[in-house]
Amino acid sequence: MLTPTDPARFARPAYAGWLGGGNDLTQQFLSLGGRPEIISLAGGLPAAELYPLDAIRTATQRAFDVHGVAALEYGPIEGFPALRALIAARISAQTGGQFTPENVLLTTGSMQGLDLVGKVLVDKGDLIVTQAPTYLGALDAWRAREPVYRALDWQAPNDAELRAAKFVYTVPNYSNPTGVLVSQEARARLLDRVIEAGTWLVEDDPYLSIQFEGSPGASILAQYVALHPGPYEGPVVYMGTVSKSLAPGLRVGWVIAAPGMIKTLSLAKQSSDMSSSMLTQAITLELLSSGVDVAHSIVTVEAYRQRRDALCEAAERRLRNWFDWEVPVGGMFVWMRAKGDIDTDVLYRYALEEKVAFVPSSVFDFAGEDRRAMRLNFTRSAPEALVEGVRRLERAVVRYLSARLLDGPA
Amino acid sequence: MLTPTDPARFARPAYAGWLGGGNDLTQQFLSLGGRPEIISLAGGLPAAELYPLDAIRTATQRAFDVHGVAALEYGPIEGFPALRALIAARISAQTGGQFTPENVLLTTGSMQGLDLVGKVLVDKGDLIVTQAPTYLGALDAWRAREPVYRALDWQAPNDAELRAAKFVYTVPNYSNPTGVLVSQEARARLLDRVIEAGTWLVEDDPYLSIQFEGSPGASILAQYVALHPGPYEGPVVYMGTVSKSLAPGLRVGWVIAAPGMIKTLSLAKQSSDMSSSMLTQAITLELLSSGVDVAHSIVTVEAYRQRRDALCEAAERRLRNWFDWEVPVGGMFVWMRAKGDIDTDVLYRYALEEKVAFVPSSVFDFAGEDRRAMRLNFTRSAPEALVEGVRRLERAVVRYLSARLLDGPA
Repeated sequence: MLTPTDPARFARPAYAGWLGGGNDLTQQFLSLGGRPEIISLAGGLPAAELYPLDAIRTATQRAFDVHGVAALEYGPIEGFPALRALIAARISAQTGGQFTPENVLLTTGSMQGLDLVGKVLVDKGDLIVTQAPTYLGALDAWRAREPVYRALDWQAPNDAELRAAKFVYTVPNYSNPTGVLVSQEARARLLDRVIEAGTWLVEDDPYLSIQFEGSPGASILAQYVALHPGPYEGPVVYMGTVSKSLAPGLRVGWVIAAPGMIKTLSLAKQSSDMSSSMLTQAITLELLSSGVDVAHSIVTVEAYRQRRDALCEAAERRLRNWFDWEVPVGGMFVWMRAKGDIDTDVLYRYALEEKVAFVPSSVFDFAGEDRRAMRLNFTRSAPEALVEGVRRLERAVVRYLSARLLDGPA
Repeated sequence: MLTPTDPARFARPAYAGWLGGGNDLTQQFLSLGGRPEIISLAGGLPAAELYPLDAIRTATQRAFDVHGVAALEYGPIEGFPALRALIAARISAQTGGQFTPENVLLTTGSMQGLDLVGKVLVDKGDLIVTQAPTYLGALDAWRAREPVYRALDWQAPNDAELRAAKFVYTVPNYSNPTGVLVSQEARARLLDRVIEAGTWLVEDDPYLSIQFEGSPGASILAQYVALHPGPYEGPVVYMGTVSKSLAPGLRVGWVIAAPGMIKTLSLAKQSSDMSSSMLTQAITLELLSSGVDVAHSIVTVEAYRQRRDALCEAAERRLRNWFDWEVPVGGMFVWMRAKGDIDTDVLYRYALEEKVAFVPSSVFDFAGEDRRAMRLNFTRSAPEALVEGVRRLERAVVRYLSARLLDGPA
């Protein structure tokens, strides 16, 4: 019999169905940040020591001077009006399109944009076509809506799947996790098929500001705009953020979409958190309108290039026997695929023993089946730490392979 | 045939099912704030002219001094550690309980807390037992999870419904929309039944700082703690916020719950927005630790008392013929119930023509059936505006009743 003095024994209602299939790997990786003995190549975090703290302090003072109590109010759900207008003007300049504030929803980082897209489009069992491997946060964002997935084939998109899908999800610029820059031709092909199929295309672009060599070229949104001038009503739902170009703690991102979609996403946002912080949006307005993000990106890109090079050079010496990879021309990650029979879920345990962390490919696979690759981040650690991290990773690989050899063939 | 130059004609996938039943009334009311000719008694907003702007500026500088780039990082999902600890200490002091940071999740306002509770507990068709009428934002927050509702009877809670429910929802202190302060006896009775039924009890407490006369007494959380000393593992999921005691634009609220529930809510929060702004949480930490909220509440309560009195005295002269109400001893609202046959959905249209707005009772009824009452807010408008608003409301009632008389009996 239950007694009121033993609350732990009380029965409680079951959690919602989606939590049965959940994992808390992202949470694990974020919390690894607190263990100083681990060199974490697992996260996707910018370099905190580079955050433009002084510029943000100045912008904050200016935000209070200019906006006063307006920065302390519940916002319009869609966001601080002057920042919406600035984002609309920027995206118009970047794409050559005609975007107005009605095309813009400000969000708590791009992560909330992903959550809201799932909330307004997905019912249990609905189809999402996604680039594969897929950003883990996107899979997390949609888990509570219980969708099913098909992998996007960039070379030959499956028209039947596109027609059946609620939307297609892509990160064409320096993708998470693979770091790949999708070609202009592949973008155009996908856009054409998406228009034909009559579905939505979510273009997630958090790494735009991190370009080491060359240029990413036109976004899919820009390609659409070039073909369809005039007020924007297109199928591309584009997401941007200041998490990489300024600082993630501001939690400011945006969705660019057709006005009807923005209105629907706003309704969903209202029921998620009423509005984001007007203060951080007012600060972001001051930062973007004085070009701090552009200046800051020059600094970070230079630092990240050195880090990418340190990681890739060390890996060339120590990991090339076992893994293949392309050196990324932008973004935050190197994606390494095992040449032979290496299970990166198992390797991960050896790596943690050697005090280095990465993200195994299984978590980026909606089916959880790809266990032959790993994602290494190079933005969060100093070059020396990256070199040491690769050294530890080499030891982990050797120990893993030795142990398997001793165990005999599986 | 579809042509790529006519994007408006493209078919698009259907929105998720819950959007079929959505309404955007809250959005309407928030946007009325932008129409200066309307006296809005409809919102639930604090008085912006009272926000402690200077104290918040000072706290912001101090947050940058003390926390530096830590205020610009992705947070721990659960929130800025020092603020979690402060909230745990405060709630321990308020209730006499033993709360640790593991009992605390920081959220983007209480609204996000409500959203997350729905996300982790509710599958389509699940039961929520709620006080009725119910806070509109809560109904909004859970709409995407498609629950069903039963009304809580405070005098005699229905045990079968409690056993079947995922949770019970209440605002015992100066409830939204009715302004009612629930008695200690009724709280104890509900708590007892909830424990017996083995369900969760969501106690939403945004108006705690707005007390005009007397005291609200022990929260249901405090009642639980008094009966069950020791580390908190209870069924009460308590929500607080600084939106009323400091400023809503900070978007800082918190959930107090058993550690297992906090962990699950954190997982859901991670997939909603990764983390809230660390900057606004660091600012809130400085404000709370220097007692700004307590000092500010003294100022606002005095101002709100004058406003409540201005509204209620004017209503006594002009509306008592047609409506009954209790003068609230706390909170932000007067709930007026028609003595006779007045349909407040219809009255609302006459009111808008007279340039005054309120919230009709139908939107607080999960069944949408109660059309005999209205909610008037007194915190957002100056006393003279409240008096003028009541005058306009009187004209609206007279015009509504006259028109009905001319139309003859329905």
